[in-house]
Amino acid sequence: MKHLLTLNELSSDEIFRILDRADEFYEGVKAPVFSENIAANLFFEPSTRTQYSFNVAEEKLGMRVISFVPETSSLKKDESFYDTVKVFESIGTDILVIRHTQNAYYDDLIGRVDAAVINAGDGTGNHPTQSLLDLMTIRREFGRFEGLKCAIIGDIRHSRVAHTNFEVMNRLGMQVVTSGPEIYQQEGFNFQPFDQAIATSDIVMLLRVQHERHADDNGFTKQGYHREFGLDSQRVKILKPGAIIMHPAPFNRGVEIADEIVECERSRIFAQMKYGVYVRMAVLERAVGE
Amino acid sequence: MKHLLTLNELSSDEIFRILDRADEFYEGVKAPVFSENIAANLFFEPSTRTQYSFNVAEEKLGMRVISFVPETSSLKKDESFYDTVKVFESIGTDILVIRHTQNAYYDDLIGRVDAAVINAGDGTGNHPTQSLLDLMTIRREFGRFEGLKCAIIGDIRHSRVAHTNFEVMNRLGMQVVTSGPEIYQQEGFNFQPFDQAIATSDIVMLLRVQHERHADDNGFTKQGYHREFGLDSQRVKILKPGAIIMHPAPFNRGVEIADEIVECERSRIFAQMKYGVYVRMAVLERAVGE
Amino acid sequence: MKHLLTLNELSSDEIFRILDRADEFYEGVKAPVFSENIAANLFFEPSTRTQYSFNVAEEKLGMRVISFVPETSSLKKDESFYDTVKVFESIGTDILVIRHTQNAYYDDLIGRVDAAVINAGDGTGNHPTQSLLDLMTIRREFGRFEGLKCAIIGDIRHSRVAHTNFEVMNRLGMQVVTSGPEIYQQEGFNFQPFDQAIATSDIVMLLRVQHERHADDNGFTKQGYHREFGLDSQRVKILKPGAIIMHPAPFNRGVEIADEIVECERSRIFAQMKYGVYVRMAVLERAVGE
Repeated sequence: MKHLLTLNELSSDEIFRILDRADEFYEGVKAPVFSENIAANLFFEPSTRTQYSFNVAEEKLGMRVISFVPETSSLKKDESFYDTVKVFESIGTDILVIRHTQNAYYDDLIGRVDAAVINAGDGTGNHPTQSLLDLMTIRREFGRFEGLKCAIIGDIRHSRVAHTNFEVMNRLGMQVVTSGPEIYQQEGFNFQPFDQAIATSDIVMLLRVQHERHADDNGFTKQGYHREFGLDSQRVKILKPGAIIMHPAPFNRGVEIADEIVECERSRIFAQMKYGVYVRMAVLERAVGE
Repeated sequence: MKHLLTLNELSSDEIFRILDRADEFYEGVKAPVFSENIAANLFFEPSTRTQYSFNVAEEKLGMRVISFVPETSSLKKDESFYDTVKVFESIGTDILVIRHTQNAYYDDLIGRVDAAVINAGDGTGNHPTQSLLDLMTIRREFGRFEGLKCAIIGDIRHSRVAHTNFEVMNRLGMQVVTSGPEIYQQEGFNFQPFDQAIATSDIVMLLRVQHERHADDNGFTKQGYHREFGLDSQRVKILKPGAIIMHPAPFNRGVEIADEIVECERSRIFAQMKYGVYVRMAVLERAVGE
Repeated sequence: MKHLLTLNELSSDEIFRILDRADEFYEGVKAPVFSENIAANLFFEPSTRTQYSFNVAEEKLGMRVISFVPETSSLKKDESFYDTVKVFESIGTDILVIRHTQNAYYDDLIGRVDAAVINAGDGTGNHPTQSLLDLMTIRREFGRFEGLKCAIIGDIRHSRVAHTNFEVMNRLGMQVVTSGPEIYQQEGFNFQPFDQAIATSDIVMLLRVQHERHADDNGFTKQGYHREFGLDSQRVKILKPGAIIMHPAPFNRGVEIADEIVECERSRIFAQMKYGVYVRMAVLERAVGE
């Protein structure tokens, strides 16, 4: 039984093992059937991609799937997060796939819950399976990590995707720079001016502008952001040959990305979602493995 | 991979093939097992009958079922309808069963999404599986369509059921008239006075009074509607011998239908729901067939 | 097809048969596979434990599971409780697992619905599977019922758990006393002063303080309740040797139970949840049995 909380806890070897296994599943290797295992998807924060991607991955592995709906649960009677998770442990869940607004929510669980915890996103902390699917997308595109340059554009400070990717990409021999509005940048994260960043990178990874978070703390309108930092067909022209565009999604069309770019030839946004299922199959299989 | 968006796109032969197959399933013919297929139920509008009827049909065909809950999805982060549907395509869904408030929502999807779209109701537009289950109910009752008369009573203008049924029933040789409050009628839909319509039809099909839609635009109270156009035990007496009562449901007891009529001998309302499962099995099988 | 509405309807023999079967499942006896049966979980009131425990039990029996989400159903179009349940009958459900705020909601269904109804809690009325899992917990602990004393502490008047347990425990030869705030007590339920009740019982069963219900009708703050009737480590010291602590949950930490007691050595709170799955497997198997 193996948790997956952050990518820090995985050696590079372990990361490659997961990616290799995900590639195998993607290429049609028959998955084992885990019909005795129960996976519970506990999303305390809205999610489409991650939630249903795990759901499909669990189904493909033949697991029994329990989908928690917070709105109709005893959370309405003030039951706590910890006590809710303990219910799912008690009724026999082997795998707890959890997303929660609180950073490092899993600190309350590890050692106290007898089930594998898979972190599907904690606050502004980590989102390890998103990073793994990003890595799978990059490796399937370029065949390697070493020497590639990735520019992460947007709200670095509040992005669990940025945090997780920055660390692991550097570890795997990539160069990572960040760009976008200065007030979104974070110290130690290797800032580069926007035009330079996108013109010199193999991967341009856009982040979602979280309007609900930034309504007050800055002067950007949606149009203003798009004008200064939005990726549109003009700016795509300055990308390196062979460069690809990624985004963890959901994206704001007309803000960080122009409508016509979402499904353009360089975009791998929907490919990322596709690979996400296979990465999660590998992570789920690992979770219940010996 | 075959969509089902409206009944217009189906030839009469195709309609009969679906109905024949639904009859087979209903009579116990063993369904094939589609354990490799993933069906996603995307209901952007409330539904009980249609949603769970598809769910049961998918289960009976051994499909893997993903049930989308809008309330806990990235719709909360303003993700668009199109982008939400693209997620489900990307994660490997073969069949998208979709209900949406917008008429012809599927125009945004066809040709851009690599999965079979089954329309489970679009705004005031179409509801093809409802019509198919209505047809199945009628054919199981009368053994034919040719020469039968159906009176559709109520808000014709806003009813996707009325629109779809009017076209297909005429095509299959039935006579269709409409009745009810004049302000609800639509040109070209063959109006008849209420008493005449119900007294001369083989099928009296009631529509739900949509109070949420009509609060302001007319003078009807619930009691007033019931008095003028509600089917009660008095009015049932003037129905033709052998005539049956149908309703797509949900129905308003005491408005368009009296409480005691819902489960009376002539009512086929719950039979319609029962047949709905088998019609949907046939439609789902067709969707993934060659 | 056998309903389970209250425990009154079960003879002691039938109760023992269910408990024996639950023990067998718990100890690893392979469950039959009911892949032809459809179970629908209809929770019209929030629930975590009971809802997902049934869900897991149904999965372990290989049933096809339909999970109703009231928020996205035609309840939003004012469809009634009865008519909603009739939908699930009509689409082929064999087992209806229902929780509803209304006492004896099932009186509207029995004889009118062709499916087994399992009561998962009705208002302040009954909660038979909760009582069965309480009994399983007690019997696995003490090996018998005869001669044991159980103290039920808290809001007796509004607790379906208290009502159901009082009757069945007395029937099985246990002595049951109730305690807690006087205004929560009910005539005929054998009151004992708090300290005496907890010091002389083999089972101390705490009930949840329902703040949402009691905001106005009494002088208790959370702290006040805890001071007078909360089980904390001081009070646990006066329990009988071998006595255990139970709670149907959700519990209020720091109100009826101190934080440190929830998972203490004497607590069986999470064991109750665990056994709940096996009791429900036995009840579900009985429901579809001959």
